[in-house]
Amino acid sequence: PLSKLSNVGTTIFSQMTQLANENEAINLSQGFPDFMPDPELLSNVDHFIKEGFNQYAPLGGVIGLKEEIARKIENSHQAVYHPDSEITVTAGGTQAIFTAIAAFVKKDDEVIIFEPAYDCYEPTVELFGGIIKRFEMKAPDFDIDWTAVRSLVSSKTKMIILNNPNNPSGKILKERDIQELIRLIEGTSILILSDEVYENIVFDGKQHLSVCHYPELKERSLLVASFGKLFHVTGWKVGYCAAPKNLTEEFRKVHQFNVFCVNTPIQMALAKYMKNDEHYIHLNEFFQAKRDFLRKGLSGTSFELLDCEGTYFQAVKYDKISDKNDFDFAKELTINHKVATVPFSSFYKNKVNEHVIRLCFAKKEETLEKAIEYLSKI
Amino acid sequence: PLSKLSNVGTTIFSQMTQLANENEAINLSQGFPDFMPDPELLSNVDHFIKEGFNQYAPLGGVIGLKEEIARKIENSHQAVYHPDSEITVTAGGTQAIFTAIAAFVKKDDEVIIFEPAYDCYEPTVELFGGIIKRFEMKAPDFDIDWTAVRSLVSSKTKMIILNNPNNPSGKILKERDIQELIRLIEGTSILILSDEVYENIVFDGKQHLSVCHYPELKERSLLVASFGKLFHVTGWKVGYCAAPKNLTEEFRKVHQFNVFCVNTPIQMALAKYMKNDEHYIHLNEFFQAKRDFLRKGLSGTSFELLDCEGTYFQAVKYDKISDKNDFDFAKELTINHKVATVPFSSFYKNKVNEHVIRLCFAKKEETLEKAIEYLSKI
Ligand SMILES: CSCCC(=O)C(=O)O
Ligand SMILES: CSCCC(=O)C(=O)O
Repeated sequence: PLSKLSNVGTTIFSQMTQLANENEAINLSQGFPDFMPDPELLSNVDHFIKEGFNQYAPLGGVIGLKEEIARKIENSHQAVYHPDSEITVTAGGTQAIFTAIAAFVKKDDEVIIFEPAYDCYEPTVELFGGIIKRFEMKAPDFDIDWTAVRSLVSSKTKMIILNNPNNPSGKILKERDIQELIRLIEGTSILILSDEVYENIVFDGKQHLSVCHYPELKERSLLVASFGKLFHVTGWKVGYCAAPKNLTEEFRKVHQFNVFCVNTPIQMALAKYMKNDEHYIHLNEFFQAKRDFLRKGLSGTSFELLDCEGTYFQAVKYDKISDKNDFDFAKELTINHKVATVPFSSFYKNKVNEHVIRLCFAKKEETLEKAIEYLSKI
Repeated sequence: PLSKLSNVGTTIFSQMTQLANENEAINLSQGFPDFMPDPELLSNVDHFIKEGFNQYAPLGGVIGLKEEIARKIENSHQAVYHPDSEITVTAGGTQAIFTAIAAFVKKDDEVIIFEPAYDCYEPTVELFGGIIKRFEMKAPDFDIDWTAVRSLVSSKTKMIILNNPNNPSGKILKERDIQELIRLIEGTSILILSDEVYENIVFDGKQHLSVCHYPELKERSLLVASFGKLFHVTGWKVGYCAAPKNLTEEFRKVHQFNVFCVNTPIQMALAKYMKNDEHYIHLNEFFQAKRDFLRKGLSGTSFELLDCEGTYFQAVKYDKISDKNDFDFAKELTINHKVATVPFSSFYKNKVNEHVIRLCFAKKEETLEKAIEYLSKI
């Protein structure tokens, strides 16, 4: 057979965005801001393009940007990475995740994921012949039963993939989860791929606990983050992977043959912009205001709001409105009520359907207002 | 073992660029222009960034850019691709190549390559468990013995990788080669991955023969090209893959999980810029002048110029000067004579050493002049 991924179709985010566009619906499906990034950052790009920074960057990334990344990580998590040998700039968080899996997962290796899970983990593992072991976190609490997770571990376990804060549930790992994880991997050589692209979007004064803060985890972790999420430029496609030298070496062997390097003027622009911490330290409050606006607006409706501790996303239960499965409900919502969302079942291999959909609140207040108006009529 | 690519180090291009920088040598190693791209193209980026095109592009690419690509291919090669379902914008030619291999090459599949070969093909095939079969084209003519190639074909042959014009030899395929290739694949289901990133840099009025021009090849080909090479912006990292719908579908399954999509404002800028064919139809002459300048300058020296029909690169034989192997010679040239080049043996698995090095002439006249001055002293 020609296809290596016969079960894979077009990602749900593209499907829902297309449906939104076709139906002129408000697009709260795919996660991206509909407001402008900081003009200062935008002008930086023009500056470096006109200064002539238009040729290949070093394969690991522009040195100034790697230094700023290291500084940010140290400030946020008290973890030290060597910019030159432990940080790699990538073409977005997705490419970092793909490359990390490519670099380490071999045929028949087992990889543990937590569902609901971002949709790239599983097919990427499959592409390299790995086998997925899944723990299903269930609405409304999405708690992790670590005894159950432990039963997934075997001598073949190569990697555990975390996503913290979790897309789509909006949950963050607790100190207790981290300690369980540390116990779990003790005495093994299991790697951790930690997708923390929403690390700066955590609410109510809660703390994002990065794997890099814990030496027992850091030494075996590939930490992935995204400038798209940090600076409202998802279309620029720049992120990074921070990992100890021995893991970065393997990561870069693949990275250099996958994309070789990442857009130079954009790296330069980000490096300059990151010199000022003010540009991201208030991100939590900025997005919390949006979350609160959406929650307040929906509180009078029949939609039931689940907890939201972080990310761009608010999960809502709609079982008081419809007993349709979530995919059909999300379609109906887009077509008839002009609000596009993402059905939660797309984040579960077994299409677990708990009548939950995901709403992206990384939007202008007018956009959220309109969506609330439409949803309130249901 | 942790490493999946234990034989792989840092790509030769990064090694030589680093050595050049450390020694303040003129860098004719890694292939990139040292002159400014067209200011109009640069301004386009600023325009679209400030207009607000900073969020995710569609996964296949911005529609206007895909349309311009289809138009260019039709004008150049009389081949028709459907923009929406047969063209995918990629994060450079390298990512297109990696993704094409990822999408089709399975464990134990055989892949035929022609050496000297760009250094990403082999490790990428290896990463997916494929097996390389190689035909060595040898200096000074680099001719292909198709009988020998035919003997490499087996029932396990999944793909043939072409690079035309060839980096580093500067050779292009002749009509006779194409006809041999058509005969070779007749009655098989072998795919062709055709890396044509230098398609618009062909000299002396010769014709670049794209696989897409030949229906028997087009139907099974993944055609890869690069805007970095076309518009002197190697650091922007945008290219594309054109392939029939059924192949594009598989390509995109991997693409969406590898990078998801490519930088939006840069795609918009390229789309606008490509509306004017004048922006690339004279590229051949532009680079031919540089090639001729370099050749003229070196003609009085002990370096022997091999033919150069296309690409950024001039191959020269140095056996009248030194009997060192080409890697040591290139190092010595960088350190002692301040001109960095790439040793040809890096393009052969078996490190075939024919005392040939590669010089990049995609440089300002002053740069080439200085390099000639230094090389003339040897
Ligand atoms: C890469 S498209 C998906 C964007 C995103 O992070 C999401 O919607 O979950
Ligand atoms: C991606 S770095 C190499 C650039 C190039 O095409 C070459 O020098 O051959």
